[in-house]
Formats: sequence, structure tokens, C-alpha cells
Amino acid sequence: MAEFRQNMATKEWVIIANERAKRPDAFVEKHKPVITETQLFHDPKCPFCPGNEELDLEIERLPEDGAWQTRVVLNRYPALSQRGEVLRTFDGVHRSITGVGYHEVVVENPRHNTTLALMTPQEIKPYLQTIYSRGWDLQKDRRIEQVIYFKNHGERAGASLRHPHSQIIGLPVVPNDIRRRIEEARRYFDDTGYCVYCTMMKDELKNKVRLVTLSKHFVAFVLYAAPAPFHMWIIPRKHSVSFLYIQEDELTDLAYVLHDVLRRLYVGLRDPAFNLIIRSAPVKEISNDYLHWYITIVPRLSRSAGFELGSGIFINPAIPEESAAFLRRVKV
Amino acid sequence: MAEFRQNMATKEWVIIANERAKRPDAFVEKHKPVITETQLFHDPKCPFCPGNEELDLEIERLPEDGAWQTRVVLNRYPALSQRGEVLRTFDGVHRSITGVGYHEVVVENPRHNTTLALMTPQEIKPYLQTIYSRGWDLQKDRRIEQVIYFKNHGERAGASLRHPHSQIIGLPVVPNDIRRRIEEARRYFDDTGYCVYCTMMKDELKNKVRLVTLSKHFVAFVLYAAPAPFHMWIIPRKHSVSFLYIQEDELTDLAYVLHDVLRRLYVGLRDPAFNLIIRSAPVKEISNDYLHWYITIVPRLSRSAGFELGSGIFINPAIPEESAAFLRRVKV
Repeated sequence: MAEFRQNMATKEWVIIANERAKRPDAFVEKHKPVITETQLFHDPKCPFCPGNEELDLEIERLPEDGAWQTRVVLNRYPALSQRGEVLRTFDGVHRSITGVGYHEVVVENPRHNTTLALMTPQEIKPYLQTIYSRGWDLQKDRRIEQVIYFKNHGERAGASLRHPHSQIIGLPVVPNDIRRRIEEARRYFDDTGYCVYCTMMKDELKNKVRLVTLSKHFVAFVLYAAPAPFHMWIIPRKHSVSFLYIQEDELTDLAYVLHDVLRRLYVGLRDPAFNLIIRSAPVKEISNDYLHWYITIVPRLSRSAGFELGSGIFINPAIPEESAAFLRRVKV
Repeated sequence: MAEFRQNMATKEWVIIANERAKRPDAFVEKHKPVITETQLFHDPKCPFCPGNEELDLEIERLPEDGAWQTRVVLNRYPALSQRGEVLRTFDGVHRSITGVGYHEVVVENPRHNTTLALMTPQEIKPYLQTIYSRGWDLQKDRRIEQVIYFKNHGERAGASLRHPHSQIIGLPVVPNDIRRRIEEARRYFDDTGYCVYCTMMKDELKNKVRLVTLSKHFVAFVLYAAPAPFHMWIIPRKHSVSFLYIQEDELTDLAYVLHDVLRRLYVGLRDPAFNLIIRSAPVKEISNDYLHWYITIVPRLSRSAGFELGSGIFINPAIPEESAAFLRRVKV
């Protein structure tokens, strides 16, 4: 029989379709070859490739001199505008706010045809440092309430350019979705005195069945109430509300864990499309006690349809414990 | 400049990407021919085609004798099981409920290669009557808290079978998403004494710019805070919490409006994939004053990616007023 499972942090239910579940290897993109090394490839038309840099859009690069490892540029077609004031218009049932905010692109590596799974942890570290640096910069703008750090990999995950890149959007509002997470976390803290994310993480460490990778500072696991196949969290062991509080040694460790997890996905499932999100506290909530930052990785292996739209409940055709066991067995 | 808009009923924000918005005709699926009439096509392998009926799965048909117009069958691979008790397990941070519920399929028409846009209002009426009849039946089961009525049309919307069909899922829980809508509607009612949906609908009638179709009993419009291009509501003018309170003449009228709206999409955009959801009150909330049932139509013309997953805010690359004007101009 299928099973409803609840995510304790969000109180969202999912349906784990036990009976009609597919085995983990059914999600392998068998038509794709496994590529574990790439030849340097330079696309003369790619705006992110070395030599083609659009310098008018550049915000920062690392290192500042010599050949860059990562670059940050303005999105050429930004969803939001950096200039302007946050003006709220309340006109009957119509409420609007001017589309002020940031929309930046992080070029993760000079190499056109690589991806985080093929980069080394040493190459991933400057990428994380760059996100950290941009996060602090956006955080200083009084108009910004929330920063969303995300990556779309592969067409099914919404990526339109091949060159490995992530995006950062700074918003003048705290999205409702995030407000509700805060409310749930506050309620749990009020009821128990604990952070719900710490509690969930400790439970995974004890249960072990959904673990994917462990390191000194991080725990990666498939979520008990995973809304989709192989839906994972990478969460710091130390209670911390914001990614922006990360320490140097934790960042080094995170580069290793992120590489390990993404490589398991890449090799095990043959480069599935995925979204990656760094879930970090709203700008003005970074001193609260009950939130906990983490990274979500959402492979795009199933499709949401009318039922998910109508109910908000996702049907997961993979059993989380089996997904985790599969990923643990992948040779990286 | 882009604009944040808020859906008053859900308080969700969307970003209307004014600057980088596409014109409505950019969403036309130009590679598809416009087919406005279909030859009867019978697929010998289709389990929904006349002659292939799987009678062991049949729940009801309309009419009961002679050639059927609509049929309801059990889903051969149900997400939930009809037999069993709703058992809740609370074990630390793990909360689960047995996967008890209903998962039925409504075959909308005997013809394999038709769709609601190509059917006549007279053919759509028995389809709506069938949904109504199944809704009342599921409502009687004390285990059921919420019924989700939905349709996936086209591959991008999650449809796996071509033969026109809808689905009905009966759930033993009220999804969080729906609970939050109830809370918001209750708050609006407490604050103002009005149903927020009635207020929004009256505003659309007054403003006119987002209207698509009007009839005696229904109003169809593109949402002010549409999360995606051409996202529409069809809402009854009369305040009513549940689809199951619909009257005979309203049902006849709804068949006409639904046909009109879907035909505008079909002809105007050349048969885009879409999801259709009947949003009706939870089983045990059908006597409240502040909810209002309606139909949502969500064409799948844009893709959600990491930003939407991380923020819950959708970026709509079409301007709702332009989408509505485009649909109004379509010759149906």
C-alpha cells in the first residue's frame, strides 16, 4: 500500500507510491553515455567562455588577476531591476510591488562543457566562495529581504545555457513559502525547544537508511518525505540559520560533499537534470534561533501534473530508502 | 520594469516579467496544425476505446444502457488503495498515514482522438455530470477529507494516454496547500465580511481587461497575479463553496463556458498542454461561508525551475492583460 509521509519542517505531505514505485535503476538515463572526464571545450559563441567575457556586465571575478576561475555577471535579461524604489501599490484587490531586486549569474568555471560533478572539490570551492561573497553584498542593500541562490542543470530543470552557471536573485519581499517555513520552525521550537532541522538531521544520522554522504561538517540524505525521486538535503551539522555564517573550513568541506553528492547523481543516474537551491534565512531573520540553512537537490525525474497543482501533494514514484541505498553504492 | 503581483486569495506573489515578456503569439505552438474537426479514430490497443472496455475496472457509465458517452473506471495503477483503514503513525519526526483513498479515471468521450475543445457543449455536459456524480459518491465515505478533480492534457502536462480522460483522487487528509487557502479566505471574511473570491470576481467584471468569457452563471478570466502564461479561472457568479452544489442549469452553462475557454486555447495557441483542476471545498467544510469553488486552467507554456522551487514565486513571461485580449480575439 502507498504511504503518506509528512515533512516535519514544512508539514507538507507526500505520497510514496510503494506499490507502483520504480526501482532506482529505472531512473537511469540509459541513452546517455557516462562521461567522467571532459576535454576542454571552448564555444566561440558562448558569452561565459574565456575570451568572450561581456565586461560591461561583470560584477566580480575570482581571482581578480590572471585567468579567472569563477565570474559573476548581471543577467542580461534580468527578472528584476537593480535601480528603483520598492513601491507598494494597494488598489482594492490588486496589490503590486515594483520589480526591484537583483538577478546575477555565477559562471562556475571557465570550462564550457564541465559541471560540478566533473569539477574537483578544489574547483568547487571558489564557486562557493563567490556565492558567499555575493550573498553578503546583496544582504547589505536595505531593499532586499530574501536572497535565493539556485542552479538549473539540464533542459528539464530549466537551464537554457550549457556553460555551468548558477543564479542569485535578491527579492524585496520574503516569499510566502519561506514565511510558512519560518512559522513552522518557530512553532516546533516553541513546542520542543529544538530546531526542527537539527532534529530531522540527527534522526537521519541515527536511522542511517537514507544517508548518502557524511563529512566532518555536513550530512547529505534523501528526504524521508521526498516529494520526488532522489530529492536530497545537504545540511550543516552545526545549527546555523544562514549560509553566510559558514566558516572557511566548513566551506572547504562543503565543496567536497557537494562534489560527492552530485557525482553520485551524475554517475549513478547518468547526468540527470536537477535544480539546486541554497535555502538560507531571510536577510532580516539571520539572528533567529530556530531556522537552519541547507542545500536542496531536486533531480527532475518525474513530472508534476494536475494532482500536484490541485493539492500541493507530490506523488513520489521512488522509495527514499531505496534511492539512498542506490546512491551509496555508486562508485565515485 | 517587472512587477510583483499578489493573488489576494492565496497571498502568493508572482513576478510579471514586463520587460522580458513575450507577446501572446510567441506562445503559439506553430509546428502544430490547427485541427478543428476530427475523424472518428479507434485505437485497438486503447483500454478506453469502445469495444476494449475493461469491465472489471468499471465503476459507472452514462447512459447506463446502449452506447456510453462517458465512463468511470478504477485507475489500473492507483496512487491510493480503496481498502483499508486510515492509520496514522507518529514515530518521532516520522509521521505517516496509510495510503488509503480513491483514484478513478473519467473517460470523457468514446472518441479516442478528441478533446474537450473539439467536443460540443452537449458532449461536455455528461462529462461534468459524471464528475458530479462521482464527487457525491466519494464524499459519502467517512475516510475521505478532500476530493481532487483534475485533468492532464498533453505530455508536458503529465498525460500518458491520448484518449481524453480526467482523474479523481479522494484523499484522507486536507492538503496543507488547501488548508492555507481556507485560512486566508477566513481571514478575509473576518476582516471584511465578504468572500475574497466573490470580491476578486466582481473586480474582474468591473475592470474587464482580463476577461475571457462571460455567461449567465460563470465568469472566465486570466488571473491578475497569473503564475504562468494564460493561467485562468472559471468561477461561478453565485457564491458557492462546492462544485457539488451546482444546479442543472448551471451545469449546462458550465459545459458551454468550459468548451468556449478551452477552444480559445486550442485554436489560439494550437492545442497547448494544460492542467485543469476543479477546486472545491474539503468534504467537511462544505457548509462554510467564505470558500468559493472554481476551475483553474494552467497551460504548460513555461517551465518552473530552481527559483520557483526555492521561493514559491513564479515568473510569468506573459502579461495577463495581453493574454486575455489575445484569447478574446480568437474566433471559436
